[in-house]
Amino acid sequence: MSNRIAIGKTAILLASLTEEEMGFFSPSLKGANYCIGKVGSMNMQKVISAVETAAKRHGLIHPNLYRETHALYHAIMEGMEGVTRGHLAIGEMSRTVGLRFAIVRGTPFEDQSEGEWIAVAFYGTIGAPVKGSEHETVGLGINHI
Amino acid sequence: MSNRIAIGKTAILLASLTEEEMGFFSPSLKGANYCIGKVGSMNMQKVISAVETAAKRHGLIHPNLYRETHALYHAIMEGMEGVTRGHLAIGEMSRTVGLRFAIVRGTPFEDQSEGEWIAVAFYGTIGAPVKGSEHETVGLGINHI
Amino acid sequence: MSNRIAIGKTAILLASLTEEEMGFFSPSLKGANYCIGKVGSMNMQKVISAVETAAKRHGLIHPNLYRETHALYHAIMEGMEGVTRGHLAIGEMSRTVGLRFAIVRGTPFEDQSEGEWIAVAFYGTIGAPVKGSEHETVGLGINHI
Amino acid sequence: MSNRIAIGKTAILLASLTEEEMGFFSPSLKGANYCIGKVGSMNMQKVISAVETAAKRHGLIHPNLYRETHALYHAIMEGMEGVTRGHLAIGEMSRTVGLRFAIVRGTPFEDQSEGEWIAVAFYGTIGAPVKGSEHETVGLGINHI
Amino acid sequence: MSNRIAIGKTAILLASLTEEEMGFFSPSLKGANYCIGKVGSMNMQKVISAVETAAKRHGLIHPNLYRETHALYHAIMEGMEGVTRGHLAIGEMSRTVGLRFAIVRGTPFEDQSEGEWIAVAFYGTIGAPVKGSEHETVGLGINHI
Amino acid sequence: MSNRIAIGKTAILLASLTEEEMGFFSPSLKGANYCIGKVGSMNMQKVISAVETAAKRHGLIHPNLYRETHALYHAIMEGMEGVTRGHLAIGEMSRTVGLRFAIVRGTPFEDQSEGEWIAVAFYGTIGAPVKGSEHETVGLGINHI
Repeated sequence: MSNRIAIGKTAILLASLTEEEMGFFSPSLKGANYCIGKVGSMNMQKVISAVETAAKRHGLIHPNLYRETHALYHAIMEGMEGVTRGHLAIGEMSRTVGLRFAIVRGTPFEDQSEGEWIAVAFYGTIGAPVKGSEHETVGLGINHI
Repeated sequence: MSNRIAIGKTAILLASLTEEEMGFFSPSLKGANYCIGKVGSMNMQKVISAVETAAKRHGLIHPNLYRETHALYHAIMEGMEGVTRGHLAIGEMSRTVGLRFAIVRGTPFEDQSEGEWIAVAFYGTIGAPVKGSEHETVGLGINHI
Repeated sequence: MSNRIAIGKTAILLASLTEEEMGFFSPSLKGANYCIGKVGSMNMQKVISAVETAAKRHGLIHPNLYRETHALYHAIMEGMEGVTRGHLAIGEMSRTVGLRFAIVRGTPFEDQSEGEWIAVAFYGTIGAPVKGSEHETVGLGINHI
Repeated sequence: MSNRIAIGKTAILLASLTEEEMGFFSPSLKGANYCIGKVGSMNMQKVISAVETAAKRHGLIHPNLYRETHALYHAIMEGMEGVTRGHLAIGEMSRTVGLRFAIVRGTPFEDQSEGEWIAVAFYGTIGAPVKGSEHETVGLGINHI
Repeated sequence: MSNRIAIGKTAILLASLTEEEMGFFSPSLKGANYCIGKVGSMNMQKVISAVETAAKRHGLIHPNLYRETHALYHAIMEGMEGVTRGHLAIGEMSRTVGLRFAIVRGTPFEDQSEGEWIAVAFYGTIGAPVKGSEHETVGLGINHI
Repeated sequence: MSNRIAIGKTAILLASLTEEEMGFFSPSLKGANYCIGKVGSMNMQKVISAVETAAKRHGLIHPNLYRETHALYHAIMEGMEGVTRGHLAIGEMSRTVGLRFAIVRGTPFEDQSEGEWIAVAFYGTIGAPVKGSEHETVGLGINHI
């Protein structure tokens, strides 16, 4: 397991595993460029903002390059498609999310001219804004950057 | 880690981890009711059919109860929303998927009157029908059954 | 009940009631311009074609005016949104429909300058292509013509 | 007409017929488990909440079981797909709805192991937030419960 | 270039060209029934309202006929599909638009019984609510009126 | 008009103007990296393939880099959202398109570190597969490359 794990899978594991569970995969994380965060909201804008802020604070995207914001934005939205499954909306549909997310930037292809890609994964719960009235949800977005 | 892992997370791990990696989680799988399968296609019907067939063969749904087929079908479609991210189509959009899937049936809530639920997770690749022109994708659907 | 029933409601009743049940509403149908048809398919094109053909055969739209075909087409598609609930697809999602449809053309507004409108209603079943593995479905589309 | 009418059709009739018209169908309603309500709003959350509240108040779903809330929620959203025809949004698209809704819970299949299902039907108007600038709309969602 | 340009193309040119550039096409605009406007917002309702208000103020639709409002509304929404490309939402997805729009009403078909049609075109930018973090976007909706 | 026109606007003009009309803009095309093509089909895969083939043949994307194919693919799909307005489907919905398309690759931002972007524009007709039963349609997709 010293081999590198694909960036999407790395992002999913980082978003869904506990620290103890993640320990098994620590050798494969060596040198990986990633960050983790949390967000709970009925508001999609807050989810987007939480991921963008984390990405900038941890240097995963260049804060002033629109090119990189654009790549990240589309990866976030694609991840949120998996989370929302059919309608890219949370509060408007009377539901709320409690999510852990992970952002991984890397070079997933052997051919180095394929350059860098970014993965955004979400894992957590979605449901009615009532404690316990919710089930798990997952999403992954990947884009070239 | 002897505790039970949530059914959605279990399904994602089963779909995305190698057998060796999955070994770390084997204690939590004790008594779990699940199956794993593979499907590669440009045809959504083949993906749906592969999951339904696996579920029936492994006794995860009752083969002749529409009620259970209905629950599974919606879980599959919600999982495919995450895989396809915005348009529930594969070949019609000139793309192909190579997926591993896992189906888990269980009682995720402490209150036993919440009954049984089913989780369907997909992990694999999506992309152009050209070897290497593809990236990772993930999806998870959960429904009461 | 000698009063005119709104065109959308008329279309829904025509699509969903038996002949005996429809008898109760016959006074309100006096002078109404409508037709009824049936279609069962996994193919959206066949559904569209069945409705268009019925509309032309019964003189509900002018057969050679694109303007009227355009109005009817959008009413059909809006009705099929209700039938398919989220994804305008049938066979691609491994499901089949068995539908009765009704088309009503009339002047639903008191102000006569609001002119003619067309309503297309569907009622029937949607489900797996297995006898009995299906539940009811409904849809209504309305457009100015 | 002493026979039972299917739960979806019952829900549509309850949502769209006047009390006088519904009289014709009263024999078929004997023993049916249903309720009726009204909601007018530009806000989807208010529509969802009106249906959920009515369902709980009339004992159509168990108020503290997420399993039942989950089944009802998806039936509501599927019904609203028919109402909104393509975009699950009301006020965000500058439109408003005035709806009557009916919820029916029953055992629509002969095989009793198919258990209980729930139907949510909407009938009313959708349009600009200007009196008279609106047309009819319908939706039906059905789920196992 | 004295020939009439199709109404959709006219609308796109009016929305996207500078006054100087539009000069080349002025002969083809003779007798055309159109107006131009601008709107910048994170709020879809403001975009819809800006176009509807411009259309009424310039006499492109009859202010009190729902029939014409209905035709224009659907043309606007179809144009906004092109602008938003996949999710008919702006601010809810943390993005903003800066648009120029043009509305053209005319008789695009040789057969005069095809009557009048309306075209709504948008051209401008869409992106993060940060100056410069945006790219171009276009949309066109056409409907019979 | 010797100034560079934005890549999206350039693509729209190239797709929608006649050669004679395009003459007015020839000074702004100096040094632009673009190509033009045509495709008529009921099959989305043929549209995608026509654009991808043209892009590769004219050297607008590197033929063996998935990174560039990925950027182009998403630009095509976003352009087709505008063309299809709400449902990314053609033949499945009984309609056909006759499109001219243009692909432009360039550096639309003053800050050179924003790098290269690609624009794909479509202009043509969409409608029933009957000559004349169709109206204009437009779409534009833009992506970083």
